Amino acid sequence: MEELIQSIRDFARDRDWDKFHSPKNLAMALSVEVAEIVEHFQWLTQRQSDELDREKLEQIEAEIADVMIYLTRLADRLGIDPVAAAKEKMRLNEKKYPVEKAKGNAAKYTEL
Amino acid sequence: MEELIQSIRDFARDRDWDKFHSPKNLAMALSVEVAEIVEHFQWLTQRQSDELDREKLEQIEAEIADVMIYLTRLADRLGIDPVAAAKEKMRLNEKKYPVEKAKGNAAKYTEL
Amino acid sequence: MEELIQSIRDFARDRDWDKFHSPKNLAMALSVEVAEIVEHFQWLTQRQSDELDREKLEQIEAEIADVMIYLTRLADRLGIDPVAAAKEKMRLNEKKYPVEKAKGNAAKYTEL
Amino acid sequence: MEELIQSIRDFARDRDWDKFHSPKNLAMALSVEVAEIVEHFQWLTQRQSDELDREKLEQIEAEIADVMIYLTRLADRLGIDPVAAAKEKMRLNEKKYPVEKAKGNAAKYTEL
Repeated sequence: MEELIQSIRDFARDRDWDKFHSPKNLAMALSVEVAEIVEHFQWLTQRQSDELDREKLEQIEAEIADVMIYLTRLADRLGIDPVAAAKEKMRLNEKKYPVEKAKGNAAKYTEL
Repeated sequence: MEELIQSIRDFARDRDWDKFHSPKNLAMALSVEVAEIVEHFQWLTQRQSDELDREKLEQIEAEIADVMIYLTRLADRLGIDPVAAAKEKMRLNEKKYPVEKAKGNAAKYTEL
Repeated sequence: MEELIQSIRDFARDRDWDKFHSPKNLAMALSVEVAEIVEHFQWLTQRQSDELDREKLEQIEAEIADVMIYLTRLADRLGIDPVAAAKEKMRLNEKKYPVEKAKGNAAKYTEL
Repeated sequence: MEELIQSIRDFARDRDWDKFHSPKNLAMALSVEVAEIVEHFQWLTQRQSDELDREKLEQIEAEIADVMIYLTRLADRLGIDPVAAAKEKMRLNEKKYPVEKAKGNAAKYTEL
């Protein structure tokens, strides 16, 4: 991750793009890239979305990469470590969604 | 990352949530979580988005964590390594956006 | 529609919210409201999404209303008539997706 | 609006696309189209987003049309009138955001 963060920083700095990379703009770009993932799945059944051919998978991999890049960049601009934040959130989720109540139930935790 | 991937896998399996986690559904959930980041920034100026107070930052950190979790989960379900994919994409970006052409210019590479 | 457009204009003006309603900000708000629709559907099967109970339908109706409001507001700020634009687009779609080629096929028109 | 609703219905029926148009799928398509609006604004300042040239405006008009089409289609599939829903929501908004409290303040109503 550290190598990725640094390469994105260098990339933006070398192109003088830091001025475009306000957190507000990066949040927008992140949402645009996520929509490019969603686009691949919008007309598929859930089953089809689990049985993608190699070509489709490679296209989606490229979109996942873009989301990862913008998420990493946004987090970096805000001084946030996204992997550490995700681990901490998983610890909270363990408490919010106790196994005995959540099992087999996708209801939001507030509805449990 | 490997530890995060595994903890998300265990979390879903323990709750019998694998059945909800089709790539199609995960793509939707990812887009919903990204919107929760965007919501924090929608009425801010770019400058304000760069000068967040601690409380706001903690709220956004929790949303970034959720995006990271769903992105990791989606990639895992598709057999994709999101960090490796992002690094490979950065290598391609270096070629698509040569410094001399891209400097200070946010135009999409197709318009360069 | 004209009545709706005017009521949104008055609402924003009375609250001195025009300054927040740049097209950039309205596009962000629009995407946030759409995600609130998506959230209702993210864990449902397609069949379940077609068999919503009254309570769920009323919640989704409120989210559709919010999307309509921001879409109308954004279009108004840009001097665009969204209904006329949609009708014109449908005329183009008739040509881009000829019945004989598109029948039963959700492939994007570029792939037809 | 009624004419638009009917033309979208006919368009989908003639192409045998009703089977793809579950509310779940339409919500996804709606979010993808909104992202195409957001993409036009992501690197602009708020001021630039208010001073678009004719070419850009025409591109955004086409995206607004797509959002309007999918929003109308989704509402139609759910038996919802989006314009009536928006008007009703505006009546609620008048109460939730009283002028004296909301004036010049973009804080969400829950924070007022």
